[in-house]
Amino acid sequence: MTRPRSGLLPPIHLQLQGEPAHRQICDWLRGAITDGRLRPGQGVPSSRALAVELGISRTTVMTAFEQLQAEGYLESVVGAGTRIAAVIPDDVLDAIDTTRGGHGTQRAPRAISTRSRTLLAMPQDSQPQSVGAFRACIPALDRFPHATWSALLRRHARHASPALMAYGDPMGHRPLRDALAGHLGAVRAARCDASQIMITAGAQQALQLCARVLLDPGDAIWMEEPGYPGAQRAFTVAGARLVPVPVDQHGLDIEEGLRREAHPRAVYVTPSHQYPMGAIMNAARRTQLLAAATRAGSWIIEDDYDSEYRFAGRPIASLQGLDTDERVIYVGTFSKVLFPALRVGYLVLPRDLVAPFRAARDAADLFPSTLLQAALADFLREGHFARHIGRMRMLYKQRCAALVRALRMQIGERFEIVNAEAGLHLVALLPPALDDGAISRRLAGFDIAVGPLSYCCLQTPPRRGLILGYGSSSESQLEGAVARLAAVLAATT
Amino acid sequence: MTRPRSGLLPPIHLQLQGEPAHRQICDWLRGAITDGRLRPGQGVPSSRALAVELGISRTTVMTAFEQLQAEGYLESVVGAGTRIAAVIPDDVLDAIDTTRGGHGTQRAPRAISTRSRTLLAMPQDSQPQSVGAFRACIPALDRFPHATWSALLRRHARHASPALMAYGDPMGHRPLRDALAGHLGAVRAARCDASQIMITAGAQQALQLCARVLLDPGDAIWMEEPGYPGAQRAFTVAGARLVPVPVDQHGLDIEEGLRREAHPRAVYVTPSHQYPMGAIMNAARRTQLLAAATRAGSWIIEDDYDSEYRFAGRPIASLQGLDTDERVIYVGTFSKVLFPALRVGYLVLPRDLVAPFRAARDAADLFPSTLLQAALADFLREGHFARHIGRMRMLYKQRCAALVRALRMQIGERFEIVNAEAGLHLVALLPPALDDGAISRRLAGFDIAVGPLSYCCLQTPPRRGLILGYGSSSESQLEGAVARLAAVLAATT
Repeated sequence: MTRPRSGLLPPIHLQLQGEPAHRQICDWLRGAITDGRLRPGQGVPSSRALAVELGISRTTVMTAFEQLQAEGYLESVVGAGTRIAAVIPDDVLDAIDTTRGGHGTQRAPRAISTRSRTLLAMPQDSQPQSVGAFRACIPALDRFPHATWSALLRRHARHASPALMAYGDPMGHRPLRDALAGHLGAVRAARCDASQIMITAGAQQALQLCARVLLDPGDAIWMEEPGYPGAQRAFTVAGARLVPVPVDQHGLDIEEGLRREAHPRAVYVTPSHQYPMGAIMNAARRTQLLAAATRAGSWIIEDDYDSEYRFAGRPIASLQGLDTDERVIYVGTFSKVLFPALRVGYLVLPRDLVAPFRAARDAADLFPSTLLQAALADFLREGHFARHIGRMRMLYKQRCAALVRALRMQIGERFEIVNAEAGLHLVALLPPALDDGAISRRLAGFDIAVGPLSYCCLQTPPRRGLILGYGSSSESQLEGAVARLAAVLAATT
Repeated sequence: MTRPRSGLLPPIHLQLQGEPAHRQICDWLRGAITDGRLRPGQGVPSSRALAVELGISRTTVMTAFEQLQAEGYLESVVGAGTRIAAVIPDDVLDAIDTTRGGHGTQRAPRAISTRSRTLLAMPQDSQPQSVGAFRACIPALDRFPHATWSALLRRHARHASPALMAYGDPMGHRPLRDALAGHLGAVRAARCDASQIMITAGAQQALQLCARVLLDPGDAIWMEEPGYPGAQRAFTVAGARLVPVPVDQHGLDIEEGLRREAHPRAVYVTPSHQYPMGAIMNAARRTQLLAAATRAGSWIIEDDYDSEYRFAGRPIASLQGLDTDERVIYVGTFSKVLFPALRVGYLVLPRDLVAPFRAARDAADLFPSTLLQAALADFLREGHFARHIGRMRMLYKQRCAALVRALRMQIGERFEIVNAEAGLHLVALLPPALDDGAISRRLAGFDIAVGPLSYCCLQTPPRRGLILGYGSSSESQLEGAVARLAAVLAATT
């Protein structure tokens, strides 16, 4: 129910439910002043008169008037009551008048940055939040040990000390960094201690920080072609010049890279499991890359996004562990081993980069949320992490085999399957006539999230293909999705 | 206990505890190859011979050899056994040799970005992680309702759906954005709906995104002088040109700003409670600023960091709510109303900036951690948030009064206290002879975290002063800290 009112002031409809009356009066008077219906110097009724007229208590009106005086909209004049403050200059009000409704030619520019416009022009993932079959880079979310994780969170949330609730270290929570240093040394053959580890909000933030600390606008960076679109975006927004360098079955083609740009400021590389093609960078390329970086004074950004899941043998040793010149910045993530919405990743930094990364992190978002880090440190220390990885490796091996089997049976030789030996996805190369983007769009209608290979390319791709994730889908889901894919292919050609 | 060995290969000491033996063999052979002790083409003993010599199972040795073959360090030659792969070129090894130990003149450049060097040269907070008395911008951490918060976290952690564990919306979790839109409309007189709200990792990330989306390197931004150092860092790292504009008792001096730079790309302002001086920007300045921004085509970044805590009357209405030209980007945070280590803040965006901010967020760190957002949405919806703010406002009012009383009694007229009417801190201006930085450093030794006013200034400050936080200290702690401050002052002069 509302209570209409008219008189000297513009009309007000006081809502009897919801907002307190004094707030409604404030908003009403403030609006009438700023839109020019009440002019500077104009008197307003006394609080007593207004209270009577609106049928509310005088205290309510006085509360509103006091607030508006504090904000400078009203002023009290001794002997003359309350009036609209004279301090709002008329020319200001006139300026507001001319812009009102002025979304046409009169409108002042609404400029955004050049890098922001470049970013908007880049291809965007059409189904970023899909959890449908084939979605790449998503682990088996229903196999995550929720009860264990929830208990660890509770342990830290119920009794957080003031020190853990206030401002934390930009490098991250020390117990988690200690646990990670041990893990990386043992499993990734990394050479580091906790002082070199920075906890980030996922690998994407790690890449963004690399871009900021290492690259000036216009600086060249080698990018794998095809490569990871998230990395392309991170370096683009920093204003870097992206130099596509082809990958083959042994990873990044170093000699071709040197021909295209002999002195890159940095090299972005996924040596343990190239994204998306799956190649392992061999020992020759690794040493070639390290030597080339040392000669050219380049940094190497090693993105080790899912190396935990190699189905035969242990994970490939990291490039970071081979680096004797402290050129490699190692990027890791918990998105593939735990779950993406956790948003925790990490960097292993050369010692002389710790101070600049710390300063950049402080300027970017101060430090990471403490609770998740504290629970995660216990998750690692108490062995849950290693156990979960072990279980998931077996599961993904089975799912990968099931997907390959279904593709062979239902689609046969039209697909060339590459590197189905590790990780959470494989790539199926298409015959030349087929358009990966069109197939991806058709399947999206069935909640099937196939990534087109061409979406990973900075240049026109020599081959088109489909990125098929198997981490988060059961064997029967994979078989059903392959059947749908086969039907779409049959309809396309 | 270790087992020494010598022979054709470099010596290895197998640790019987810790690392599995096959990993130790891998690391040992890989290291010997990359540091040149084993040369390309050189044969290695058969797995059988090595197993006998090391006293371990042949399977262990074969596991290690298979791993090194996968990584490309070893190769099998039919009829000739296993040897060091010939694919590591000698010139590469030579290049590595010349850089080894080469931290002297031969070393290739280790260049970092210009903005990173600028950032490193800025003054850094000497006690960023202190929770000592007087620490500014920290709420009463021991009064936070941990049991309620922990129960809400558990509710969402134990039964997270796959959709909430996978990749989320770069704008944030929709239920939290809905809850915030309601809160901001009611309490901050903001005009927005949930589609304009982006959840960030605290206010600092919000400022960083503003810098990225709105400012090209070299673009001018008005900064309050004195002002918030975190904002200075966020805009510096984006390469912006910071234009200091003085503040007085009514907030930012718009006319002086126009004299210094008539066409800033953006204006950074804390109108509800200027940081650090505490002034409220009055209605005249607000309309002046909005009109000037409209004329010059500037964006206004409104940082509303602690406006919930005004001791007399309700919070000052936001500038965003007055803006009819969609020029204002509103920045809010939960750090002051809940706790800093939560790392959750938010932006309210003009509608035409939603797409570029979404793209910038995606490139920066994809999206925020879902669990904390889900729990926070319930915390708002179920009324815990409003109740906590109400309780804390009373507490801070008492603590502020206690601090003012103690300063008056123990230090008297030597301090000029400004704007002790809101928020979590006040500023005490010092007599001209005293050095705020020196006082701050002396008090740091007693775990008292006084912020020097000069640390907030881009130019030489006209007055020096101390930023005294009272949010996280009890009345008796505040009295004790004032006594210590008085003693330091007595020793200084």
